[in-house]
Amino acid sequence: MLKTPKSLNLTLQNTPIIKIKPQKGTTLWLKRDDLTGIELSGNKIRKLDFLIQEAIDQNSQGIITCGGLQSNHCRAAAYAAIKAGLDVILFLRGKPEERPTGNHFLNQLAGATIQYVTQEEYLKIDSIMGEKSEDLMSKNGNFYVIPEGGSNEIGAWGYISCFNEIVQQITDLKIAVDAIVVSTGSGGTHAGLLLGKLMANSDIDIISINVCDDSQFFKEKIKGIVDKFADRYGEKFDISYQDIYIFDGFTGEGYGITGKREVDIIRQFARQEGIVLDPVYTAKAYLGLETLIDQEIIDYKNVLFIHTGGIFGIFSYAEKFL
Amino acid sequence: MLKTPKSLNLTLQNTPIIKIKPQKGTTLWLKRDDLTGIELSGNKIRKLDFLIQEAIDQNSQGIITCGGLQSNHCRAAAYAAIKAGLDVILFLRGKPEERPTGNHFLNQLAGATIQYVTQEEYLKIDSIMGEKSEDLMSKNGNFYVIPEGGSNEIGAWGYISCFNEIVQQITDLKIAVDAIVVSTGSGGTHAGLLLGKLMANSDIDIISINVCDDSQFFKEKIKGIVDKFADRYGEKFDISYQDIYIFDGFTGEGYGITGKREVDIIRQFARQEGIVLDPVYTAKAYLGLETLIDQEIIDYKNVLFIHTGGIFGIFSYAEKFL
Repeated sequence: MLKTPKSLNLTLQNTPIIKIKPQKGTTLWLKRDDLTGIELSGNKIRKLDFLIQEAIDQNSQGIITCGGLQSNHCRAAAYAAIKAGLDVILFLRGKPEERPTGNHFLNQLAGATIQYVTQEEYLKIDSIMGEKSEDLMSKNGNFYVIPEGGSNEIGAWGYISCFNEIVQQITDLKIAVDAIVVSTGSGGTHAGLLLGKLMANSDIDIISINVCDDSQFFKEKIKGIVDKFADRYGEKFDISYQDIYIFDGFTGEGYGITGKREVDIIRQFARQEGIVLDPVYTAKAYLGLETLIDQEIIDYKNVLFIHTGGIFGIFSYAEKFL
Repeated sequence: MLKTPKSLNLTLQNTPIIKIKPQKGTTLWLKRDDLTGIELSGNKIRKLDFLIQEAIDQNSQGIITCGGLQSNHCRAAAYAAIKAGLDVILFLRGKPEERPTGNHFLNQLAGATIQYVTQEEYLKIDSIMGEKSEDLMSKNGNFYVIPEGGSNEIGAWGYISCFNEIVQQITDLKIAVDAIVVSTGSGGTHAGLLLGKLMANSDIDIISINVCDDSQFFKEKIKGIVDKFADRYGEKFDISYQDIYIFDGFTGEGYGITGKREVDIIRQFARQEGIVLDPVYTAKAYLGLETLIDQEIIDYKNVLFIHTGGIFGIFSYAEKFL
């Protein structure tokens, strides 16, 4: 078994697993990874614990990363970097808001250096970040580049650890879980869970519901992370695209667009469970999960859905809820 | 030793204690009670765990409570009540916003029945809530009334438990704490900590900084809670006003008003610690603590400041940060 690399350990570990309203014959469990922190809440901090540790190990002065204007990843990265004593440069897709709210507000508050990029520029964001880092390096500034969502072979350790945490928790709680379901927006969480499953030789199925692009896009992205992980750590995993379970059809009106369906499910879930789903990831993924069970596309006795956080984003969608 | 009553147990216990930047010769510790949950984050849920449990024990159909438009207590009460299967009626001081944000938005999302009251009506909010409860009772609706901030002799158990938690944690961490400092806005947190100290016969001083009204107002309020607690549980505590340490002078421009000083300290703290103070409570109390140490009004080697949460409120003050 591979040794887990050193971690910054900022994540609040052992986030609760609770039972929520069942769906048809399926018992539903919720892993509350929205409770990993406050400034650091959500799934991103699990990946950043390993990524920012690597930045420190490389004597970096700061980090460079990217995301949408309301990116949970960028917010968690900014606050985690401050805690590690590092500077923060964020490339945010969008325009400055007149009255910043949610994650965008929190990033400004943190004093992150923000550069706004257009949708078109964002298509080549990896090279933009690479150039920025080279430019700073030529001025003796060593900045560590973290890709969108922290989704690469280092960040994957976050959800390898989480997979192991889940296995330990369900053993302690004496509950069975046949499948873990999560939203996917950059592939890293799914990739980490899948690697955790493969390394632990577990029977639990890992399933994701994409909130943008399509399933083939993410199958390639996830396989890419798994392959790079295998290369880096000298492991071998025999997986092909058909071993990566992703269900299309729940992106709604598109990434970051909150329609009536998302508003309705967020409202219903808040009133039923006392828990707030986020409009960009978990609302779409939970709607997907409900539909997959309802239409008997998946058929498990026990499903664990991961709440990947993101409550701050909701404030930028307040009008939709009026 | 009194037995702790039954609790709903929704609070995430053992919130971290971390070291923050020292002030002059004082080592500063931060108890992160902003990490008690997400919807339930902050100090209020510790009190609500006992209050809503009592509502359940009395076979209540719902709860009635009150606070400002951005009340953290009301938000936590609404989400805790949903989890307990209870209805929620909130009396909020203020007018409906055109574009609700922060706690106010979350309360609407939770489906709480909201009645807006004026500043003047709020002065007699206890009788307004009492009348509402009697009116509902006459229609066979049993609603449990929770006072502002959950601050009474039942809610006090929340910070009696927290005091015991702190004592256990500092013992485990092998650190010394000479004084606990907290903001006070309705007196309940201070009263609970003080009761905890008295019951444990501890040497730790309990100090609060009031964010509204004045110290005499809170001394009376806190002594009132301690006396009612003693009555209810057949205990006896010999305390007078001079045993209740409250420092005036840090209300700024008034309750809920965020001035330049609060904005500056929130920004500075976020950039220094990667932690967001809230504008209504902790920003004012932390400013107070800094001043008390700086002016040598208090002189301890080790002070533990409690972060009582409230991050959602900040979004309603976004303009102040521009």
